[in-house]
Amino acid sequence: MRVIQGSIDVQTKSAFDIVDITSLVEKWISEKGVSTGILVAYVPHTTASIVINEAEPGLLKDIVDLLKEETKPGANWRHNLVDSNAHAHLTNVLLGSDKVIPVSEGKLSLGTWQRVLLVEMDGPRKRKVVLVYIGE
Amino acid sequence: MRVIQGSIDVQTKSAFDIVDITSLVEKWISEKGVSTGILVAYVPHTTASIVINEAEPGLLKDIVDLLKEETKPGANWRHNLVDSNAHAHLTNVLLGSDKVIPVSEGKLSLGTWQRVLLVEMDGPRKRKVVLVYIGE
Amino acid sequence: MRVIQGSIDVQTKSAFDIVDITSLVEKWISEKGVSTGILVAYVPHTTASIVINEAEPGLLKDIVDLLKEETKPGANWRHNLVDSNAHAHLTNVLLGSDKVIPVSEGKLSLGTWQRVLLVEMDGPRKRKVVLVYIGE
Repeated sequence: MRVIQGSIDVQTKSAFDIVDITSLVEKWISEKGVSTGILVAYVPHTTASIVINEAEPGLLKDIVDLLKEETKPGANWRHNLVDSNAHAHLTNVLLGSDKVIPVSEGKLSLGTWQRVLLVEMDGPRKRKVVLVYIGE
Repeated sequence: MRVIQGSIDVQTKSAFDIVDITSLVEKWISEKGVSTGILVAYVPHTTASIVINEAEPGLLKDIVDLLKEETKPGANWRHNLVDSNAHAHLTNVLLGSDKVIPVSEGKLSLGTWQRVLLVEMDGPRKRKVVLVYIGE
Repeated sequence: MRVIQGSIDVQTKSAFDIVDITSLVEKWISEKGVSTGILVAYVPHTTASIVINEAEPGLLKDIVDLLKEETKPGANWRHNLVDSNAHAHLTNVLLGSDKVIPVSEGKLSLGTWQRVLLVEMDGPRKRKVVLVYIGE
């Protein structure tokens, strides 16, 4: 049994952005020479999240639209008196900070259409994604 | 320490469907002769999810109603120009692809009312749930 | 490799309440003398959840407001014919029952603003949070 912890950095490019980080995560995993287990991808942030879904360009815009509709950037949230990013915190509350992906024969067990996506709601920023592999 | 990976198949029966897969997951776990650890249940799909909640029939319909209200099937999403299932992708974005459940003395540590539910938003289809046990 | 399972109890104080349980979770972890791995925090409940975000007082109220707006307490949900807490079940469906947090050098790898928050939507009640550490 092995536990391997590391991280990758991701530069987001606008206030609302979705970055496909699949190849970065796959590269990290493949360099470790692992076998069967799980990968935890975790953002140590309160205004960004990770989502696993399809990277079709129209869908990525739909996801941002949905999240804006739910969390209403610029609305009269109390947190906007402290900072102007309540919508980004609320998005993270809905989407979470962690995702767990099975690993089989040293590779992420992603389905045909699944990609690992970093969802930025308060960018542009340099974001960190902590990766933990636990398995054989 | 052991890592055990497998999967179960689930046939959903309609466009929107919630299937209680608790007994299938419990059977898988009990056949492995495990002890203390965690079970990861993961859908390699972008239009279905797993939820852990009560299987009261009225509530299952409420869950589908809530998800439809949030993700608006048939609305003017960009992804509906490519495929007609944007609402199902968006549901998976909100609910995620993985759930982690503690395992104690070889059994899922579910609370009194908790059941493991597969949420179908683009059925009917044959769905796969990947299961990974990590523990003693 | 070690697997350690335990739990903490949390008393919530009102129907809708968010309790910062970070110090309780950190105390549990520090007492175990662990190193590198992951912590799973799991509620065996269907009407409460765990969220990881900032504990700014205004934001905590915003979170409750968002969840109420999404799940509409007192609305005409079918489950309210059985029990009056459909909104709390629906909140758990959206937020989930588990969160996974990396552990490094025996400490939770929380970001600067991240706190571990128990979200109560059907209180006041005594809630249980199951904790599982897997790692070195």
